Amino acid sequence: MNLFELAPEYIRAIQPYQPGKPISELVRDLGLDKNEVIKLASNENPLGTSPLAREAMIQALSESARYPDGSGFELKVALSDRLGVSAEQIVLGNGSNDVLELASRIFLRPGTSAIYSQYAFAIYPLLVQAAGARGITVPARNYGHDLEAMLDAITPETRIIFIANPNNPTGTLCDARDLLRFIERVSPDVLVILDQAYDEYLPEANKTNSVAWLKNFQNLVITHTFSKAYGLASVRVGFALAHADIANLMNRIRQPFNVNSIGLAAAQAALDDVEFVKLSYMTNRTGMQRMIAGLDRLGVGFIPSFGNFVSIQIDGHQADTLKIYKSLLQQGVIVRPLGNYGMPNHLRVTIGIEEENKRFLYALEQALKESD
Amino acid sequence: MNLFELAPEYIRAIQPYQPGKPISELVRDLGLDKNEVIKLASNENPLGTSPLAREAMIQALSESARYPDGSGFELKVALSDRLGVSAEQIVLGNGSNDVLELASRIFLRPGTSAIYSQYAFAIYPLLVQAAGARGITVPARNYGHDLEAMLDAITPETRIIFIANPNNPTGTLCDARDLLRFIERVSPDVLVILDQAYDEYLPEANKTNSVAWLKNFQNLVITHTFSKAYGLASVRVGFALAHADIANLMNRIRQPFNVNSIGLAAAQAALDDVEFVKLSYMTNRTGMQRMIAGLDRLGVGFIPSFGNFVSIQIDGHQADTLKIYKSLLQQGVIVRPLGNYGMPNHLRVTIGIEEENKRFLYALEQALKESD
Repeated sequence: MNLFELAPEYIRAIQPYQPGKPISELVRDLGLDKNEVIKLASNENPLGTSPLAREAMIQALSESARYPDGSGFELKVALSDRLGVSAEQIVLGNGSNDVLELASRIFLRPGTSAIYSQYAFAIYPLLVQAAGARGITVPARNYGHDLEAMLDAITPETRIIFIANPNNPTGTLCDARDLLRFIERVSPDVLVILDQAYDEYLPEANKTNSVAWLKNFQNLVITHTFSKAYGLASVRVGFALAHADIANLMNRIRQPFNVNSIGLAAAQAALDDVEFVKLSYMTNRTGMQRMIAGLDRLGVGFIPSFGNFVSIQIDGHQADTLKIYKSLLQQGVIVRPLGNYGMPNHLRVTIGIEEENKRFLYALEQALKESD
Repeated sequence: MNLFELAPEYIRAIQPYQPGKPISELVRDLGLDKNEVIKLASNENPLGTSPLAREAMIQALSESARYPDGSGFELKVALSDRLGVSAEQIVLGNGSNDVLELASRIFLRPGTSAIYSQYAFAIYPLLVQAAGARGITVPARNYGHDLEAMLDAITPETRIIFIANPNNPTGTLCDARDLLRFIERVSPDVLVILDQAYDEYLPEANKTNSVAWLKNFQNLVITHTFSKAYGLASVRVGFALAHADIANLMNRIRQPFNVNSIGLAAAQAALDDVEFVKLSYMTNRTGMQRMIAGLDRLGVGFIPSFGNFVSIQIDGHQADTLKIYKSLLQQGVIVRPLGNYGMPNHLRVTIGIEEENKRFLYALEQALKESD
C-alpha cells in the first residue's frame, strides 16, 4: 500500500507500549470474578482517590458538556502557589506522558539523539523513536542510572537526556547532589528531563529540591504526575516545570484542550488534600516493609525500591518467570512482567494495602511451590 | 538562549489556538455574576450531557485511581457494532483534535504539504505548522470548500487534505456526491481527512454515508467527536475511522492512555442514548429557525449553516464587530469573534436553548443600537 509506505520507517517500526493488564481484561480472558481480582500492575494508589478530589470531580460533572478551560488557569495558580514557580513556567499535560511527548516533539527529529538509561521508563524510547531520533541506551549500574556514563554518552547531536528519579520499573534513586553535579556538567543546549512521577513516595531526606535548580538551568524540565500518590490515574493529569521560554514552546504545540475538565478539577482539589498524600506515603512505607519481609521469608530476591512498587527476581529461566506470572493471574493477582524492559526474570509488584500485599505473597508462595 | 533556538523555526512561530472564552474567565475579567452569563462561543450542547452518560461517569469515578483501559476495548466494540467497521479500523483520541494530530504527525514533515480550505477549522493549519509542513490554503467559494480548486492545489509533496463537513466556523456543507467524486479523483497516496464533528446536526437527507467509502479508499480517514451533539466536550473523546493499516500506524504513536476513563465510560453510554442525540438535533433545528428569524428581523446577515452555530456578519469595519462583541460580553453573552479565521466582520454564535437564543438576540439588538 502506497500510503502506508509514505509513513516514516521509524513510525512503522514502533512496538506500542504494553500497559498493565486491566482487571476487565483478566475477567474476560480467564472468567474470574471481578471482585476477586487484585491489580498490582500499574503502580496505582491502593487507597484510591482523595475524598476532596472525588467531590471536585462530581462537581465538575455538572459542566460536562462544556469544553475545559484550555489554559488550566486555576490549576496553574494552585501549582504556582504551591511550588513557587510562575504560571508561565508550567505546562499541563494529559498525564505526564503528554508533557514528555511535547518536549520530544520540539527537540527531537531525524539526525538528533536522546539519552536514557537501560531499564528506564519504557515511554522514553517510544517517544524518541516516534520523533525519528536516535535513542542512546546507557547501561545501568545496579539497575540505576549511571550518571557518569550518561554524560560520556552525549554527542553533538544529543538534544534530550531523560532521567526518572525514582526510576520505574527498578525503583532506584539518584542522589540529589550527584544529580545537581550532573546537570551542571551537561551543556546548556541539551535538555535534561527529570521525571519525578514517584517523588511523593520519597522520605524527606531523599527528596531533591529540583525546583530551586530551575533558576540556574534553562535546560531543565521537571515532570510530575497526579497518577500515583494523588490517586488520579483515570483522569490523566501531569505537568512540567521549566524555564518560561521552554514552557512557552511546549504550550505552543499542546492540544488546546489537552487536559479534561474532570482532571483539572480533581488535580486542584488533590493538591489541597495534603493529608491524603501523607497517608498514601505512610501506607506505602509500611506496605513496602511488610512486602520486603515477606519476600525475604520466601527467599525471593528484589531490587530495593524508592517507589510504590518493587521488582522481584525469579530464579531460573524466563519461562519460569512467565509461569509464575501466569499462576498469579490464575489466582486473580495481576503484576507486571518486565520482559519488554529487558528484565525477563523480573516481575514488578505495586505495593497495595495490607490485604493485597498478603494476598500477593500468599499467591506467590503457591506459584513458587507449583513451579518447584 | 541556545536551547530555544534549537527548536524549529516553525514551532517557534506558532500562534496557539484561541479557544472560546470560558465563563470563569469572563466572570473574573468583568466581575459578572456566573449565573447571569451565557456561553454561545464553543458550539457546545446547550442541553448538557445525556443522563445515561452522566450516570456512567459517576460510576467510572469509583475507579478513579486506576489507569484507563488503554485499548479502549469496550468503546471500540460499541463503535464497531454501531458503525459496521472492525475495531482495527478505529483510533480513539483525546477529542478529535488528538486523532487529527496523530495523522498529521505520521504523514507531515518539512518538505511535505497539506491542503485545507480558507475559513476551515483553525486546528488544521496549526497541526500542519507544528509538523513543519507547508500549509496550502485554497480560497473558499461562498465560504465553503471549493473541491475543484482543492484538487488543483495538490502537488507531489501533498500528503493530507483536510475537509470539515459541515465546516466550522462557516457551517457550509459539501454535497455527498461531490465529496465522493472528489475522493475518487485524489491520488491514493494522499490522505483525505473528512472531519464530521457536526454530522449529528445534519438532516438525514444531507448525511454522507462516508463509512461505506472506507472499503474503497484506503486513503480516507473519517473523524468524529463526542464534544458536540453527544454533549461531552469536558471529557475529551473523539475517534477516527480508517483503513486498518492507517489506524494501526495512528495507534502506534498514540499516547498509551490518551483517553481518560471518565470519557471512555461516558462516550459508550452516550452512544446508547439515541433519544438524547435526537433531542439535541431537534432542539438545534428549532433553535436555528428562530435564530435566523430573529437575525432577519434585526437585518443582520449570516452564513446559512448546517451546524449547531451560525456566523453572523456585522456591517462596517472590524472595529464595529469588536464593539458588538464587547457589548455582548458586557451583557453577559459570550460569542466567538472570527478575526483569527480571516473573518473580522463575523461573529460565530452557537445555537442555544430557546431562552439563550432570545437573550442573545436581545443583547445583539442592544449592541447594534449602541453602535449606531
